[in-house]
Amino acid sequence: MIIMGIDPGTRRTGYAIVEASREAPYLLACGTLTPSPRASFPERLLAIYRGLLDIVSKYKPEGMAIESVFVKHNISVALKMGHMRGVALLVAALNGLEVGEYSPAEIKQAIVGSGAASKDQVKFMVVALLRLADAPSEDEADALAVALCHIHRSRTSEVSPLDILHKRYTC
Amino acid sequence: MIIMGIDPGTRRTGYAIVEASREAPYLLACGTLTPSPRASFPERLLAIYRGLLDIVSKYKPEGMAIESVFVKHNISVALKMGHMRGVALLVAALNGLEVGEYSPAEIKQAIVGSGAASKDQVKFMVVALLRLADAPSEDEADALAVALCHIHRSRTSEVSPLDILHKRYTC
Repeated sequence: MIIMGIDPGTRRTGYAIVEASREAPYLLACGTLTPSPRASFPERLLAIYRGLLDIVSKYKPEGMAIESVFVKHNISVALKMGHMRGVALLVAALNGLEVGEYSPAEIKQAIVGSGAASKDQVKFMVVALLRLADAPSEDEADALAVALCHIHRSRTSEVSPLDILHKRYTC
Repeated sequence: MIIMGIDPGTRRTGYAIVEASREAPYLLACGTLTPSPRASFPERLLAIYRGLLDIVSKYKPEGMAIESVFVKHNISVALKMGHMRGVALLVAALNGLEVGEYSPAEIKQAIVGSGAASKDQVKFMVVALLRLADAPSEDEADALAVALCHIHRSRTSEVSPLDILHKRYTC
């Protein structure tokens, strides 16, 4: 099962393609789509749309995992993020991808084991779970975390990514 | 010049196609896209996307007019509306349409002459300006109003829709 994690943002959209192998999740690709800051807002939406379509066409994921909408500090930023999110969900629907939406607390709980974990803790666990050589960017880490959360949730009857990690560290 | 007015909503999206002729604006089409309430949210976005693409392909507008984002009563509804709006702006960008965004007060000012006009006053003026036989639905009226506002704003050196109406009524 290949899962695409998305962290849509008004300036940058992080993406991650993770394969849920039997042993442990495996990173196929991750990156950031960064439309030109000089582009108009509709042009930025178009750049994200084309970028996501390209990635889906290349890696053929079966599902898309995305953080559920929540208003952080600035409503206007959250509203703009809603536009980007709409484009991401459209790409999912166009390609028949199952969508999993998770709250920040659900993601932290699945990755770190605590819904109140810090961003650094999440990033640390993402690096460990996927055995990454380099630390991902903030947007990539968020996309990786939501993809791992989705894989964890899809495997309720199996072991969690955390269990896999603990097993590896204790063997 | 053919303008497409859009009133994106989480359940219904109103659209209007208005031709800005020299004499007076002329209604080519208006209606409402209503995805199945049983469809998932990504599927509803897809239905709106395909519906808008069909309309653009049929009427070939040069511009899209849309109400600017504002949070009314419910932030969660505004956020969902942002998703629909993202899809509408994507359709504009895919087809190279110029986008005009107007606040509710700007639209009311352009159509009724007062930024504090009621919805009924706006609908009354939309019916009068376009010489409609039947009253449009709420969503259609909003889409027509923003299209007329855009036409009015694009003609700063010419007469406004209000001037045209007043002229017609006083002749």
